[in-house]
Amino acid sequence: MAEKLVKIGLVGFGTVGSGVAKLILEDADAIAAKIGLRLELACVVDIDTKSPRPVKLPEGILTDDLNRLLDDDTIQIGIEMIGGTDIAKQVQLKMLAAGKDVVTANKALLAECGNELYRVAHKNNRCIAFEASCAGGIPIVSAIRTGLAANNITAMYGIVNGTCNYILSNMTTKGEEFSEALAQAQEKGYAEADPTLDISGGDSAHKLAILSSFAFGYEITLDDIFVEGIEAISRDDIRNGGEMGYCLKLLAIGQKDEQNRISLRVHPSFIAEDNPLARVSGSFNAVSIFGSAVGQVMYYGRGAGMMPTASAVVADVIDVALGNSGTTFRHLNLQPRSMTEPLIEKIDNLVSRFYIRIMCKDQPGVIAKWSKVLADNHISISGALQHEGIGPDNTVPVVITTHPTRQENVTAALEDMEKLDVIGGKPVCIRIVDIPEDKD
Amino acid sequence: MAEKLVKIGLVGFGTVGSGVAKLILEDADAIAAKIGLRLELACVVDIDTKSPRPVKLPEGILTDDLNRLLDDDTIQIGIEMIGGTDIAKQVQLKMLAAGKDVVTANKALLAECGNELYRVAHKNNRCIAFEASCAGGIPIVSAIRTGLAANNITAMYGIVNGTCNYILSNMTTKGEEFSEALAQAQEKGYAEADPTLDISGGDSAHKLAILSSFAFGYEITLDDIFVEGIEAISRDDIRNGGEMGYCLKLLAIGQKDEQNRISLRVHPSFIAEDNPLARVSGSFNAVSIFGSAVGQVMYYGRGAGMMPTASAVVADVIDVALGNSGTTFRHLNLQPRSMTEPLIEKIDNLVSRFYIRIMCKDQPGVIAKWSKVLADNHISISGALQHEGIGPDNTVPVVITTHPTRQENVTAALEDMEKLDVIGGKPVCIRIVDIPEDKD
Repeated sequence: MAEKLVKIGLVGFGTVGSGVAKLILEDADAIAAKIGLRLELACVVDIDTKSPRPVKLPEGILTDDLNRLLDDDTIQIGIEMIGGTDIAKQVQLKMLAAGKDVVTANKALLAECGNELYRVAHKNNRCIAFEASCAGGIPIVSAIRTGLAANNITAMYGIVNGTCNYILSNMTTKGEEFSEALAQAQEKGYAEADPTLDISGGDSAHKLAILSSFAFGYEITLDDIFVEGIEAISRDDIRNGGEMGYCLKLLAIGQKDEQNRISLRVHPSFIAEDNPLARVSGSFNAVSIFGSAVGQVMYYGRGAGMMPTASAVVADVIDVALGNSGTTFRHLNLQPRSMTEPLIEKIDNLVSRFYIRIMCKDQPGVIAKWSKVLADNHISISGALQHEGIGPDNTVPVVITTHPTRQENVTAALEDMEKLDVIGGKPVCIRIVDIPEDKD
Repeated sequence: MAEKLVKIGLVGFGTVGSGVAKLILEDADAIAAKIGLRLELACVVDIDTKSPRPVKLPEGILTDDLNRLLDDDTIQIGIEMIGGTDIAKQVQLKMLAAGKDVVTANKALLAECGNELYRVAHKNNRCIAFEASCAGGIPIVSAIRTGLAANNITAMYGIVNGTCNYILSNMTTKGEEFSEALAQAQEKGYAEADPTLDISGGDSAHKLAILSSFAFGYEITLDDIFVEGIEAISRDDIRNGGEMGYCLKLLAIGQKDEQNRISLRVHPSFIAEDNPLARVSGSFNAVSIFGSAVGQVMYYGRGAGMMPTASAVVADVIDVALGNSGTTFRHLNLQPRSMTEPLIEKIDNLVSRFYIRIMCKDQPGVIAKWSKVLADNHISISGALQHEGIGPDNTVPVVITTHPTRQENVTAALEDMEKLDVIGGKPVCIRIVDIPEDKD
């Protein structure tokens, strides 16, 4: 088959942008041999045209002028690798208006403005491809949109932030406190200097917004997602959970019930230690999906990094060049926002099991008091753990796990407990997520 | 978007065929809403039109006459769910000749005649889609062909036969002997009455042939694959390996070295117990792939069964109907067979570590004898295990693990050992597969 030439413009020549350039330049021959497409990097746009990069571009293609890309009608595909939301959005809109298909890894932008951008793309008869926006090298977007197309997806449990998983893994295996584990993650390059977006759960929420839109077929926004980060997690709670057979992960969870009510949340989650997701350690990502026909499937791989992300970007470039991305993009109907409002389940209505740790004064009658608070709030105890010995301020940590209970009952109980004179400080509360294991 | 009507003919109304019919009939509305395609099951062909099935077809579409499907020009896609190689091949050829795109789960046929069928499809400007042929519900074919398209795939390690994994899992966790575990698998429906194709490794080889063709871009045939089954595995060896930190799996392995030499093999394999593949238990499948850019990715899910397989078949139907399968199929160049002959590495050249168990007579000088055999064959010992106590025939089991060694040296050493008067019976030899773990 004759090779088809595909000219590409890249905007944003940072770390991932460099990886994308490198992969296109170095793999062009292999891709041409395998797929019959000759990828040509025609233009790389960045405000910084001077700093050294880990890839050598052909003479004359690096520019600080976006119009060189926009005005070149031979360029079919524009890759946006700027990151952030403001400029990146303008660049994507300009590329779509100029008749380019867009490939991006920009999860923040798609989570905030995806529905708007998709509409503009549809209007311009162009497509936006974004495999790299979620879970880096794992082809999870295409798995949801095509591989599982025949399924009614009922639930999705993802470890989609490598920074948090790296920190929690080290807290678990090395017994480090959060601050130590974070410092080490920063030192090793797994956490940014300002790690807020990662450890707050915000980045995971971005990815959940994108994935759940396509998994459930509705326009999801960030406001639909309940988010709690890992900043307050202590190694003591990880160890206590471990003793009870649980492993702590930051999960992004999307669930759809039989009435089509959708529940979306990101929070630290105790999961059974023999669940496949519990084995996902370090900076790796994994997403477990439940489909009506397929049962449980899980995808595992590197969720970030220069080359894994570039791998997904270039896969998208190939898919766009073949025309497949465009076809899929045009055919996937997201139910518009106006229809979804009543479908999002509030976190107060969540029914979950909970891990609660309270610091009790070491004196008679304590159990009677806190157990009455739980009973008054209709919370039934599933397990308890109290080691012998006295902690700080003459208190002892008491860990309780609950049977399935409504979130609002637990919230109320925690408030009541805090007022008890026999309890020191704020109770710790972590949700236990019973991922339904698909077994023989 | 207006719905596009897609008429489908199904040949083979057995278990999986029933699942496919059920999914198309029950999910037609959901698929139409999500993707804008209206799937219509126009015709179901089977020689048995009388037996009850777990799905109720619309009046008049079940027939024993294949020509009703072939002659109906409104039917765009033919699904072959017959299984076996002879009739299924004729049916596929007839469907391609009649201008239908073909969707199939028939791994045996594709492994044996895939290259021929692909050529006929190309000549007829039609496509063959076969996601369901490998690892059932896991979208592994599309992952290799599109999701990882920008990668040079260097290795692939798969648990792709649920029957064998179910048997080995039970031997491991319940301490059952092979025959007990097989009987239980048969009772529970995870093994056929004649389990030969599964336990011999033949079925895994079929899947490896298909996946490695597309992973490595060459026409692979079954003759290129070294195959060893699990029939001779004993629980003692599983337990011994467990003591040394290994878990036994039947792996399908494809590797490509820097000189593009391809090594393809299916055999029982000891893998590190903390490798993600070691956690894949029961009838589940998983495939771990190493790509030059993405690093390690793993896909996990149900490898067989009525609805998981149907899930993959209907995903293919949708992808064919959208036109994407055809585009991908036309663009993927498999290097023709004539170029591949020198590229397949012979098993004798395999460099691996090995687990060897010998039954030694309990008398002085035994170690000197067997260790001399190993030394004479240039085999270096990495670990050894001998429990106190005497076994049958006054022998004791001695387990040795080796450093990386050529297969032909080990084969020769085993032959020499068998001749020693201090060794009882045939030595047991299981390859240790050191899957390169992609870690932080």
